[in-house]
Amino acid sequence: MTDTSPTRFQSFSAATSPEQGPPRLAALRADLAAHGLSGFLVPRADAHQGEYVAERDERLAWLTGFTGSAGFCAVLPDIAGVFIDGRYRVQVKDQVALADFTPVHWPETALEDWLKEHLPKGGIVGFDPWLHTSQEIDRLEAALTPSQISLRPVDNRIDTIWTDQPDSPDAPATGFPVEIAGKTLGEKRAEISGALTKAGQAAAVLTLPDSICWLLNIRGGDLPHLPVVQAFAIIDSRGHVTLFSEPEKFATLGPDPDITIRHWDDFEASLASLNGPVRVDPATAPHRVRIVLEAAGVEIVSGQDPCILPKARKTAAEIKATTAAHIRDGVAFARFLHWFDEEAPKGQLTEIDCVRQLEKLRTETGVLKDISFDTISAAGPHAALPHYRVSEASNATITPGQIYLVDSGAQYEDGTTDITRTIAVGDVGDEERTAFTQVLRGMIAVSRARFPKGIAGRDLDSLARMPLWQAGRDFDHGTGHGVGVYLSVHEGPQRISRVSTLPLLPGMILSNEPGYYREGAFGIRIENLIVVREAPALPGADDREMLDFETITWAPIDRRLIDADAMNRDEIAWIDAYHAQTAEKLRSHLPSDTADWLDRATAPL
Amino acid sequence: MTDTSPTRFQSFSAATSPEQGPPRLAALRADLAAHGLSGFLVPRADAHQGEYVAERDERLAWLTGFTGSAGFCAVLPDIAGVFIDGRYRVQVKDQVALADFTPVHWPETALEDWLKEHLPKGGIVGFDPWLHTSQEIDRLEAALTPSQISLRPVDNRIDTIWTDQPDSPDAPATGFPVEIAGKTLGEKRAEISGALTKAGQAAAVLTLPDSICWLLNIRGGDLPHLPVVQAFAIIDSRGHVTLFSEPEKFATLGPDPDITIRHWDDFEASLASLNGPVRVDPATAPHRVRIVLEAAGVEIVSGQDPCILPKARKTAAEIKATTAAHIRDGVAFARFLHWFDEEAPKGQLTEIDCVRQLEKLRTETGVLKDISFDTISAAGPHAALPHYRVSEASNATITPGQIYLVDSGAQYEDGTTDITRTIAVGDVGDEERTAFTQVLRGMIAVSRARFPKGIAGRDLDSLARMPLWQAGRDFDHGTGHGVGVYLSVHEGPQRISRVSTLPLLPGMILSNEPGYYREGAFGIRIENLIVVREAPALPGADDREMLDFETITWAPIDRRLIDADAMNRDEIAWIDAYHAQTAEKLRSHLPSDTADWLDRATAPL
Repeated sequence: MTDTSPTRFQSFSAATSPEQGPPRLAALRADLAAHGLSGFLVPRADAHQGEYVAERDERLAWLTGFTGSAGFCAVLPDIAGVFIDGRYRVQVKDQVALADFTPVHWPETALEDWLKEHLPKGGIVGFDPWLHTSQEIDRLEAALTPSQISLRPVDNRIDTIWTDQPDSPDAPATGFPVEIAGKTLGEKRAEISGALTKAGQAAAVLTLPDSICWLLNIRGGDLPHLPVVQAFAIIDSRGHVTLFSEPEKFATLGPDPDITIRHWDDFEASLASLNGPVRVDPATAPHRVRIVLEAAGVEIVSGQDPCILPKARKTAAEIKATTAAHIRDGVAFARFLHWFDEEAPKGQLTEIDCVRQLEKLRTETGVLKDISFDTISAAGPHAALPHYRVSEASNATITPGQIYLVDSGAQYEDGTTDITRTIAVGDVGDEERTAFTQVLRGMIAVSRARFPKGIAGRDLDSLARMPLWQAGRDFDHGTGHGVGVYLSVHEGPQRISRVSTLPLLPGMILSNEPGYYREGAFGIRIENLIVVREAPALPGADDREMLDFETITWAPIDRRLIDADAMNRDEIAWIDAYHAQTAEKLRSHLPSDTADWLDRATAPL
Repeated sequence: MTDTSPTRFQSFSAATSPEQGPPRLAALRADLAAHGLSGFLVPRADAHQGEYVAERDERLAWLTGFTGSAGFCAVLPDIAGVFIDGRYRVQVKDQVALADFTPVHWPETALEDWLKEHLPKGGIVGFDPWLHTSQEIDRLEAALTPSQISLRPVDNRIDTIWTDQPDSPDAPATGFPVEIAGKTLGEKRAEISGALTKAGQAAAVLTLPDSICWLLNIRGGDLPHLPVVQAFAIIDSRGHVTLFSEPEKFATLGPDPDITIRHWDDFEASLASLNGPVRVDPATAPHRVRIVLEAAGVEIVSGQDPCILPKARKTAAEIKATTAAHIRDGVAFARFLHWFDEEAPKGQLTEIDCVRQLEKLRTETGVLKDISFDTISAAGPHAALPHYRVSEASNATITPGQIYLVDSGAQYEDGTTDITRTIAVGDVGDEERTAFTQVLRGMIAVSRARFPKGIAGRDLDSLARMPLWQAGRDFDHGTGHGVGVYLSVHEGPQRISRVSTLPLLPGMILSNEPGYYREGAFGIRIENLIVVREAPALPGADDREMLDFETITWAPIDRRLIDADAMNRDEIAWIDAYHAQTAEKLRSHLPSDTADWLDRATAPL
């Protein structure tokens, strides 16, 4: 393959270099000294605590060179720690100047312990209160107080030394069709204002862009992969919404008496003029919100962002829309799998070739808005890194005998997809088939699960692991995350995870993606999206409200990697039924050679 | 069957009558009025918060007539509420005078809400601070304060009007062999004092008899079914133990410089003279302990009773001992099952006949100390009540076509057993076989589970339910409780339950007892005890610390109720292996006709 046509949504080159860091670090330290600070915290997060940030908010990458999706830097006079989790231990060493920046294993080393080790009593650590939540600051402050180290909210010190910092993004907001949303703006405003009234709260502060986009039935283009418009909002108990952003971003939406659009700069004054009690989410709102409200004497009630749970429970219209989006995406993905089966055995395909081809086939749907995250395209041992992201430097050729893992998704106006398949290239070993079958059995156990109302993701997580556990194996990530509808591919609060005790509710979309990773050898993950629903009635059942999952992702699961002898009848029946439905849903949309391939790929075991 | 020989450990007649209540209630109300109280709480609990109480502590039964194992009475001037959970809704109506006592569904109706409904502002509710934990009182007080209802600790008002109240039990303590305990008294004292020293605590107050018996390697005879000696204790950070009880109960133990034995009456003064910080368990210690310490200005640290977790993690010697006890008990139980199979089809056996026979066969081991709880012997629809307790009044004849449930256990010096089997009598319907097989598959899933360290009972609870859930069914009790070694058959903190987030640790003994109950028709439960252990190594496993369960209960599971077609290979293999081991372990100890029966009962599916 020599296709080097540019991809629209994913890049493979490094945007930073280790050399940029040291002079910037020196400038920051001079600034801190001039302001009487013994340190400053540089998080990856912006004021909206999302997974993706705008270019002007890439402060961590600008300062250090580190571009991972999670991490932070703590700058002190004599040391600058770059805190990174297990995913980024290798990457950080390539991206930062190691003479100036010290990688710190996090969360194994807690920030507070590191600060206590490196700062004297009386140390003052500055932080930008827009970039940290109150929960984060409260926890850190409580841990540091006994050591007489204090935190001080200050203007962002990076912004003062970053002379060519880009402007805030200014992509216009667009309306999101009520036919997809299933609820009008008025219905959503009434739902939230009703909740506030019931709780005796005068207003709630919204700082998460996907909450605001959900509430207002709008989308935006401010960030890569996440179709939101950046803004803050206040909704009061009568349902009136005041937005704070760049007003011109909302020009296309037209006037609405229930919505007031103001400038970012008015946000603090508006907060200060509120009559309480005001709901603020300590887990997501910038600490600055609390500082402003407290200074103005406004009563604060800590509580979850009131849009989070309604947003997680998709409407029938949203489920119908995303079901259609998933079939469209399944068609593109089946074309990719067919192409891969033709090309990969030749031994010439690279990981980047696959990313390009998948984006090309999704683009050919004619309605692709974006990919929902950078595609994980990983051959052989690369797949053992669950979050591997291919670059020009790492790009590997896929060779026969390997298994190949592709985890990708698309943003369409009617839905957000996220699918992982692991595919054999030529003849692969028994080890891989055994592990693949264990992973698959866990994935089927979740897919088939039926459970009473009240059950949380935590209660189901072990189902996905038991076939691996029985073999003394496990995987070190959650089984599933929430997914939005043309919103975030990683949406809370629903999860299938040992840490998630929130009861699952009808309408929640989740991923179901167990895996198995053998370092230096191979990686396996199989992922479908599933929707929680009221379970269909069964003869002989108790008089109990039961839920189950409806699968919405349709694409063949590699039969060549399945050891049917290690599966029980229910599991084999599930796979055969899933494949039969996959063929039924996709076949008519495929070119005839791909349809023929699909027939083979979905034949009964 | 006409065997009416007395049982030593279980009675079938009512010890109370509804008539006793009204005059006692009137006397109590007069007493309360004379003391300026608008109410008084009468819990089932004694000062040790155990499941069994001594006769003198049967205040709830004495006042109301209600003899259930959980519940309480709240006496107000115009109403006396008897709070009972779902198990006792029927029983309470037979036992209390309904003109004077009002059954209240608990926990659906919270005590605080009921008090707020029935008391005016300014109401004062008395309680005996020996009979309630601090956690209980704190929670209740917080809920009542806004309504200006207050709680007042007072001397027990029942004790002042109960003129013929029995004395405290005075059974002598006996030594518990170190060969069974696996740790000497000195080792245990060092373990606890080490934990206190590490936590910077000067002493801990122990109020749970089974903690004290575990620590001192003693047992007692103060209570039915639970071989403990009633006492309080203080252990200091040097490992010295001061016991508070009837000193003559400890006469047989001989002098020990590390143990001081004092009278109950010295407990409060000893508490008051402590130097803090003193660890007190707010979940188990009487509120009186905190009152005394606070009045004396002693610093209190809230923390779990330090014996609870070490006690839960059985030593190798304890596991070896209880394994032997379980084989002995399995022999008695197999004889019972054989006898039942011979007799029940004749249609003459009653539920009480079965209790008698089982106690007789256990007694014939020659070493039975007690039963570990009142045997649940339930035919047909009685078994749909998970906690059914047969009485002369309820005693049913077991008829062919029914299924029969027996849940029972024994106390031997070397172990505590708890086993449930559900048995077909003659030809039973497909409904029963289908449900039995679902329950069995859940029980096998837990038995076979292998899981990483860190996993809690909550994470495994759904394994036991999934075969029922898949059929739209469930059961309304936990899957398993902790079990002691010649101690409580219901021991904390380990559980397999949706509410248990404590990681399972090697050495913990648990029951594994899923069930299914169809009201008015039948009930099914299958129960073995299992021990958490380090899982044996497996080829191809990750480098992870994994745990699994070793089954220690051996008795046939009724093959006539198993629908093998509804089971997968792993499940059938488990049953066949379990039955083969059951035969191997029990056969040589059985009379030849029972051995022949066992061969048939344990044949492969």
